[in-house]
Amino acid sequence: TIEHLFKEIFKAGLELQEDDHRKALLVSRKKKPEDTVIEINGEKIGDGHPHFVMGPCAVESYEQVAEVAEAVQKQGVKLLRGGAFKPRTSPYDFQGLGMEGLKILKQVADEYDLAVVSEIVNPADIEKALDYIDVIQIGARNMQNFELLKAAGSVDKPVLLKRGLAATISEFINAAEYIMSRGNGKIMLCERGIRTYEKATRNTLDISAVPILKQETHLPVLVDVTHSTGRRDLLLPAAKAAIAIGADGVMAEVHPDPAVALSDSAQQMDIPMFETFMSELKQSALVERTL
Amino acid sequence: TIEHLFKEIFKAGLELQEDDHRKALLVSRKKKPEDTVIEINGEKIGDGHPHFVMGPCAVESYEQVAEVAEAVQKQGVKLLRGGAFKPRTSPYDFQGLGMEGLKILKQVADEYDLAVVSEIVNPADIEKALDYIDVIQIGARNMQNFELLKAAGSVDKPVLLKRGLAATISEFINAAEYIMSRGNGKIMLCERGIRTYEKATRNTLDISAVPILKQETHLPVLVDVTHSTGRRDLLLPAAKAAIAIGADGVMAEVHPDPAVALSDSAQQMDIPMFETFMSELKQSALVERTL
Amino acid sequence: TIEHLFKEIFKAGLELQEDDHRKALLVSRKKKPEDTVIEINGEKIGDGHPHFVMGPCAVESYEQVAEVAEAVQKQGVKLLRGGAFKPRTSPYDFQGLGMEGLKILKQVADEYDLAVVSEIVNPADIEKALDYIDVIQIGARNMQNFELLKAAGSVDKPVLLKRGLAATISEFINAAEYIMSRGNGKIMLCERGIRTYEKATRNTLDISAVPILKQETHLPVLVDVTHSTGRRDLLLPAAKAAIAIGADGVMAEVHPDPAVALSDSAQQMDIPMFETFMSELKQSALVERTL
Amino acid sequence: TIEHLFKEIFKAGLELQEDDHRKALLVSRKKKPEDTVIEINGEKIGDGHPHFVMGPCAVESYEQVAEVAEAVQKQGVKLLRGGAFKPRTSPYDFQGLGMEGLKILKQVADEYDLAVVSEIVNPADIEKALDYIDVIQIGARNMQNFELLKAAGSVDKPVLLKRGLAATISEFINAAEYIMSRGNGKIMLCERGIRTYEKATRNTLDISAVPILKQETHLPVLVDVTHSTGRRDLLLPAAKAAIAIGADGVMAEVHPDPAVALSDSAQQMDIPMFETFMSELKQSALVERTL
Repeated sequence: TIEHLFKEIFKAGLELQEDDHRKALLVSRKKKPEDTVIEINGEKIGDGHPHFVMGPCAVESYEQVAEVAEAVQKQGVKLLRGGAFKPRTSPYDFQGLGMEGLKILKQVADEYDLAVVSEIVNPADIEKALDYIDVIQIGARNMQNFELLKAAGSVDKPVLLKRGLAATISEFINAAEYIMSRGNGKIMLCERGIRTYEKATRNTLDISAVPILKQETHLPVLVDVTHSTGRRDLLLPAAKAAIAIGADGVMAEVHPDPAVALSDSAQQMDIPMFETFMSELKQSALVERTL
Repeated sequence: TIEHLFKEIFKAGLELQEDDHRKALLVSRKKKPEDTVIEINGEKIGDGHPHFVMGPCAVESYEQVAEVAEAVQKQGVKLLRGGAFKPRTSPYDFQGLGMEGLKILKQVADEYDLAVVSEIVNPADIEKALDYIDVIQIGARNMQNFELLKAAGSVDKPVLLKRGLAATISEFINAAEYIMSRGNGKIMLCERGIRTYEKATRNTLDISAVPILKQETHLPVLVDVTHSTGRRDLLLPAAKAAIAIGADGVMAEVHPDPAVALSDSAQQMDIPMFETFMSELKQSALVERTL
Repeated sequence: TIEHLFKEIFKAGLELQEDDHRKALLVSRKKKPEDTVIEINGEKIGDGHPHFVMGPCAVESYEQVAEVAEAVQKQGVKLLRGGAFKPRTSPYDFQGLGMEGLKILKQVADEYDLAVVSEIVNPADIEKALDYIDVIQIGARNMQNFELLKAAGSVDKPVLLKRGLAATISEFINAAEYIMSRGNGKIMLCERGIRTYEKATRNTLDISAVPILKQETHLPVLVDVTHSTGRRDLLLPAAKAAIAIGADGVMAEVHPDPAVALSDSAQQMDIPMFETFMSELKQSALVERTL
Repeated sequence: TIEHLFKEIFKAGLELQEDDHRKALLVSRKKKPEDTVIEINGEKIGDGHPHFVMGPCAVESYEQVAEVAEAVQKQGVKLLRGGAFKPRTSPYDFQGLGMEGLKILKQVADEYDLAVVSEIVNPADIEKALDYIDVIQIGARNMQNFELLKAAGSVDKPVLLKRGLAATISEFINAAEYIMSRGNGKIMLCERGIRTYEKATRNTLDISAVPILKQETHLPVLVDVTHSTGRRDLLLPAAKAAIAIGADGVMAEVHPDPAVALSDSAQQMDIPMFETFMSELKQSALVERTL
């Protein structure tokens, strides 16, 4: 009957519209069916094996970073993270060492043959930072700082884009599109937990976002187990879940002495914990997908 | 100095209070450090291996249930789920077959050597249902229907308690305590997704709840991958994540012909999909923990 | 062009579907354009003037209730609330005096010429409670306890239905429909805050729900300022906002000595605060709509 | 007894810590008990009377802005809003006219004796914008773009800071502190709805945030009724609630022809609607607080 026909047209219209929309995006699988693989320091992020990005929350000193770098290198990890520009809720909290911090990262990374992942927060700093970092991290609070996204899209350097605190998956994908539409397609997406009513964890790790992002886009997808859970005791189980569900990488924070860390002291691993974390991952059945 | 001392007292007080509170609960690890293992139809839920609970959303007919039961049995699954009392958002949606549905479930389960898991929604129905079901399911909407919890706590039958739509982990644990405080300690907890702003999935699977519940309580923890994701394409990846993070079981919906199902048609697996689901899980590295 | 035509058909279809759905509901404005007015103890709830429902969180003793009733009566308030069956997160918290509490409420209400509003939590208790209460309250945790809704819909007694903790407005309307579809159309809806990430208030008062519910349904809409904010200092401003946006009534908790209350001690008003609350509301420009 | 004593010490410690924290902030009432009043174009924002900020979502042309400005002026409104730099979810949506848009706003504002409120999104643009705007708006997506906050804090120009999409009240206050700690204390806070699970409105207007922000800080607090509700039919009721609860101002979007607007077409008022909106507010009892 007519009503039924009408319903069919309606549904077709709905799908058509959604299709059109997704087709348009450069980051979408519709546009490019094969996986994007990003090579950094010999690691091929997006190649089907899990990769690791490890390091302290904030750069505090050469010694602190070097100590972590040594441990990281020993575990076969190739990407070192560390914050030099720290976006903090309060203006009176430690704001990071800035360019000085990037220089420390670069020096240590050279010594231990690591690549540097570090957050940039001001579009004006991107050019200056290029000499010191291998991956531009864009943090959760800046996921819709479109000026920063455009600036990151205008240079030839991999970008690790974190999901916003309360961003939908669709907004996340569009944020990546801001970068790619400027010419830079080397983008890694990073699920890092979303804000919900639940307070047992710092954020709620939206693990389903991983397969959805892998389906909708051709980009590698990482999981930051530190910021999503905010709990040391959940880092290992969360990493296992992330790898099992298909994440291309896991990010976590390691500090030589978390108790005195200038930021995030409650959630960073110390070095023995990090070694256990890596070895348990390698021993698990999942690990055969790994390293 | 005095300020520092004060801070220490303050922290100690905080921990003491929390400790006291948790110690009091019968479901807590503090009260009983070893895992509770619940034996149903030969399956030992909580024994460190993943178990499966499979079946249609709603019981529609003998034939429909039997067809699923056959497939379920073929895969070595021992627990059959099926809804006879259906809590539906609208009073005009299919409300289930009621006691008639329970009788169908029982008949089919006997024929295929399966145990029956089915939701009860009225405290007055629990006694009547005991002859037909092996596990009393308490649904998300009724997690804080305390009269129902008390009634389920007063009988000697395993209970599968689902987390409420927007329940905190602490409220979830207290809901289980309502059951156990009445004498029934055979409780399985089931994470089934929480309500958040994200609409790409029906709910947001709070995967971190699994290790937290395992730490805080001695009860088995299952994951319902159907209601948490609401998407057929995410059932397999979500199940892998659940097992990897340590869940004691996975629950999902299977229907002979989802397109004509009287409820949840968009998210149930058909039988070939279910067979693929089970065989991919068995083939994955995770599966060695399994079956 | 064809595309444009298609879009128009699409939009028309969308509206048509929504229309159809809403038309079907007995509680909808489409079904009954004029406001439902519910008369209780001389108060006409839904007549365009704000009404008040005041009283202690829980019934603790005859003296406690009588003291509040006297103050309530003095302010011209006609509806007395008080909990006899208390749904509490922990089984070890005070669970209310039960039927004994209802008898106390009835006795006090008769003495002070007040009507009684009290929560029922078990379908089996509704019949028994009819002799003691004037309004059946269904609490937030039970908004989708459909057995309870059906039982409340089968008697001839006004129902005050609270919005669930994380219920959508659409689910809330459908819960009311469960009651009305059984024959009882005397339903008052009560917004009581929803669960969000924000922790400065106990819940987040969704003030926009008031005009939406007034538009979508013909039922009176109240606002519970106590449970939505959970803060004594916000009761008065929240009540003003509620009346300004068009609520038919305001509900709040009053206790002779909140510090020793057996539940909700932090958020109940004492009697002098309640008197200030009422007199400031009456003095405000808003109050002319009132009493 | 000792336990009780301990509890008291514990509570005292808790309050002490919170006190200390709030005392430190320049924006807090503890630091400055009296209300901050910001004078812009003769309007004294924060003086206890409600003020209005009205105008189109985006600047599209001189004619469009002039048409709105004329209507705005006729209603006695003194502050004209309009977006020149538009942060949009998709890079392919209209991004605003940029500096050209600011020039149009300035020209129209001069002709109609209005002050200009316009969003700036790049720290590098703040200096350039100073000649064209009277109030720097910082949008919800940039509430924790700390580089932008610092830049706005370094100039002598009032700032209208919108609450982030999922920002807590505490984070919002700290974002204001970033501005004030740089020397600029002329800050207006603007509640604009928060992201929740409810989809009947674009966001959930957190009306309780208004009295909380007024208590915690000495800054004026506005409510953006357009973005919080996202529905034309809710603008007037939401504005009434905002004024009743004590907001210092109301912000809303007006467009000569919303159907063809380049952004937010579904939620802007046309000019006759705006005139009705203003006259109904003026006629309401609330309005005596006004204009």
